[in-house]
Amino acid sequence: MKLFGHPMSTCTRKVLTLLDEKGAKADMVVVDLMKGEHKQPPHLARQPFGQIPAIEDGDLRLYESRAILRYLDETLPGPTLTPKDAKGRALMEQWISVETSNFTPHAMAILYQLFFGPMRGATPDQAKVAEASEKLSAATEVLDRQLARGPYVLGDAFTLADICYMPYVEYVTQTSAKDAILSHPNVAAWWGRVSERPSWRKATGKG
Amino acid sequence: MKLFGHPMSTCTRKVLTLLDEKGAKADMVVVDLMKGEHKQPPHLARQPFGQIPAIEDGDLRLYESRAILRYLDETLPGPTLTPKDAKGRALMEQWISVETSNFTPHAMAILYQLFFGPMRGATPDQAKVAEASEKLSAATEVLDRQLARGPYVLGDAFTLADICYMPYVEYVTQTSAKDAILSHPNVAAWWGRVSERPSWRKATGKG
Repeated sequence: MKLFGHPMSTCTRKVLTLLDEKGAKADMVVVDLMKGEHKQPPHLARQPFGQIPAIEDGDLRLYESRAILRYLDETLPGPTLTPKDAKGRALMEQWISVETSNFTPHAMAILYQLFFGPMRGATPDQAKVAEASEKLSAATEVLDRQLARGPYVLGDAFTLADICYMPYVEYVTQTSAKDAILSHPNVAAWWGRVSERPSWRKATGKG
Repeated sequence: MKLFGHPMSTCTRKVLTLLDEKGAKADMVVVDLMKGEHKQPPHLARQPFGQIPAIEDGDLRLYESRAILRYLDETLPGPTLTPKDAKGRALMEQWISVETSNFTPHAMAILYQLFFGPMRGATPDQAKVAEASEKLSAATEVLDRQLARGPYVLGDAFTLADICYMPYVEYVTQTSAKDAILSHPNVAAWWGRVSERPSWRKATGKG
């Protein structure tokens, strides 16, 4: 299997984490974002929106990180990261949707201002940071109430839902807006727990 | 089962369509958006972000329309709207992610300007409409290439992926920005086909 991505990319890191949790590996093909390779024809043939990651697994070409996570968790051997019962799966999908729609847009708005923008020489717009921080904190408060119920998003088991939040939490907590996340005690404790997993440490170059 | 929603809501319409495809019904509890009931404590106890829809099914409380669709398709009797093989499911999830991340944000940006805003007396910002229309048309072009391969998003079978696009297509094609979608011939033909389904006609009050 080939994984087309970049080691700094949030969505690539989700896939790398899942692969290590399953005890699997893919051949990583780095798409050089600084050279704009993600917007050039060879990559656009794999991912028509010019985003990463994408995988090739036999005759399957697949993109969108959350779709890749579900597919690899289902088809690879190793421990499952998806609940076995329909209600558990429903709640996992709910929390992945919350991540996609209610959490990550505000996290990314912060990261554009404080992380990706400055890499290109832009000056952060602090009013936009403040607005996004307030919205991210409100979403994190909902997640905090859920994490009062157990060590992981779905309770006792580490699942795909945890992985989906991790790369955004990693980057936001390295910025001046980190309190939008870390002021919520159950989320802060969860982050201390999941960020020590060997899979995550390897995916982020620390392991 | 209770469905808390509103008959005009895009995400409620997805669930109503799925229920009818399965030959099932829920007790619809209307959340009155004009009165702000979605932001009041009884609904916030069901859906902490103050959005619709949400369901109660026995002891399960679930929100986020795409999670509800997957759960009901899996647990209700009737024809399945999910591919039976892992690769088919992976591609369905890919196209649902494309809808969520690459298609719907631009469709909603148009609808805020041309549909929901004017309902509250706001004047449309035509520059924002033009920008969103260009992005929506680019995303629809990708969907159009996929729909060149078969009558439905995944090929021969009508699936959850089709349902996820339908409510946004319905509303955008009622605005002056409709060509962002209807200028793409395979998408226009698909819309002609799926909008005639009895499930959709019932969900939108036409059946």
